[in-house]
Amino acid sequence: MFSNTREWIVEWGDCDPAGIVFFPRFFAAFDTSTSRLIEAAAGKRTAAIIREHGIVGWPMVDISAKFMIPASYGDRVEIETSVTRVGRSSLSLCHRLTKNGALCIEVSEVRVWAAPRSDGGSGIEGAPIPEDLVAALSGG
Amino acid sequence: MFSNTREWIVEWGDCDPAGIVFFPRFFAAFDTSTSRLIEAAAGKRTAAIIREHGIVGWPMVDISAKFMIPASYGDRVEIETSVTRVGRSSLSLCHRLTKNGALCIEVSEVRVWAAPRSDGGSGIEGAPIPEDLVAALSGG
Amino acid sequence: MFSNTREWIVEWGDCDPAGIVFFPRFFAAFDTSTSRLIEAAAGKRTAAIIREHGIVGWPMVDISAKFMIPASYGDRVEIETSVTRVGRSSLSLCHRLTKNGALCIEVSEVRVWAAPRSDGGSGIEGAPIPEDLVAALSGG
Amino acid sequence: MFSNTREWIVEWGDCDPAGIVFFPRFFAAFDTSTSRLIEAAAGKRTAAIIREHGIVGWPMVDISAKFMIPASYGDRVEIETSVTRVGRSSLSLCHRLTKNGALCIEVSEVRVWAAPRSDGGSGIEGAPIPEDLVAALSGG
Repeated sequence: MFSNTREWIVEWGDCDPAGIVFFPRFFAAFDTSTSRLIEAAAGKRTAAIIREHGIVGWPMVDISAKFMIPASYGDRVEIETSVTRVGRSSLSLCHRLTKNGALCIEVSEVRVWAAPRSDGGSGIEGAPIPEDLVAALSGG
Repeated sequence: MFSNTREWIVEWGDCDPAGIVFFPRFFAAFDTSTSRLIEAAAGKRTAAIIREHGIVGWPMVDISAKFMIPASYGDRVEIETSVTRVGRSSLSLCHRLTKNGALCIEVSEVRVWAAPRSDGGSGIEGAPIPEDLVAALSGG
Repeated sequence: MFSNTREWIVEWGDCDPAGIVFFPRFFAAFDTSTSRLIEAAAGKRTAAIIREHGIVGWPMVDISAKFMIPASYGDRVEIETSVTRVGRSSLSLCHRLTKNGALCIEVSEVRVWAAPRSDGGSGIEGAPIPEDLVAALSGG
Repeated sequence: MFSNTREWIVEWGDCDPAGIVFFPRFFAAFDTSTSRLIEAAAGKRTAAIIREHGIVGWPMVDISAKFMIPASYGDRVEIETSVTRVGRSSLSLCHRLTKNGALCIEVSEVRVWAAPRSDGGSGIEGAPIPEDLVAALSGG
């Protein structure tokens, strides 16, 4: 399955009075990692993917995370994001955040490929992931 | 076990280009709900609790969330937060976010009561939750 | 001119490793205060205003802020927001954040009432503020 | 005076329902730019500077910003940060955010070099910027 790794620098505004990352900020970083993985698999910018396919994005439907080691201001960490399952309109991913090789956080998430409701009602619904993206995400 | 409910209003800056809450912003809201529950159980402000007990807070160690219905700008939702387990130095909680009575998100989380390391090294370690707070959190 | 005051509680995730509010978080709070003022003047929810008038919101065009006293985790502060000028498609406001009566921050901002471009191109442009809202914002 | 330029990518979570950056997120980006400039001038990590000098950071005291062109999800922009004045314990900076060469935002800010109060009271006070950093920030 496809995977992608990027560096993430912990900024001042990501940290709380305990001097460690406020955990919702990790989730913002993982959201960026998911976008970068889709971008790398598709070979084009995610903003272009959303526009071309008329979707609203890939909202989160299920997430679980274990926090083992905290990260602090100025830490340069690695986030490795891997596809674990590609469904018709959903996508499972895993993020592993490491600091100097030590595993700090492990996350499993499920996203849905979402479009405006096709019956014209307000709200969103699952839509099929484009075939070429399914192939790319399933690849090595 | 102790529980506490509060209203949360979805603000403009909580929402993404799809017009729904950017999921890490929900986690910031749940973090506030956890603080409000501890405050309500202890009968004093969380900033005072942290200062009096010389702790650094109650960092997240484990969280899982299911997102069923999105929330949008201007929604007024309810977050009900319940204690599910009180350990010596850890605490399990559940958040249920509802909109007009419909369940939108369900979250389980585990927090650790954390203090600076007692051996003087940098970093944090688990510390016993104060007995009166254990009693209050375990109560009805 | 119209004004509106609300309480704001400084949450854990609003604060940085120095234990004080990370300044961009104040701006998120002021953004909410601007929405609350428009809501109070219009007598209806801002999400409804945006939908009914087909606008995209009231993006910031100019802001200046002076920070005199920091705010810390758990502080309960007041934000008083006042209209200082109502133009055809722009709006000037002032925010004063006080803690126990002491002025902590003073902000001047200019917003534009913005709609999708009327020529069908991408992007946004200024649009006239609805007359009844102009009257309400100009009122006492 | 010293200056530093970096690229900033607009992420999904930086944008609002109008599809443009929620303005407080720009300020978080400018805060990072200020840190990067200090880091580049000092030749060491900002976390190390804070630790070595026993300071609490460089909180904002005054800021003004003009927003001319919005930025959207996926935009890759440049932020050029320049020192405009170096005082004994304060620092004035300017940020210019450009997209494909077009100026989108211009910011002036004043920071104070801040340490815990030397009389042992709670709170912070201005402290002299280290001489070698003053020299580096004043340099070309």
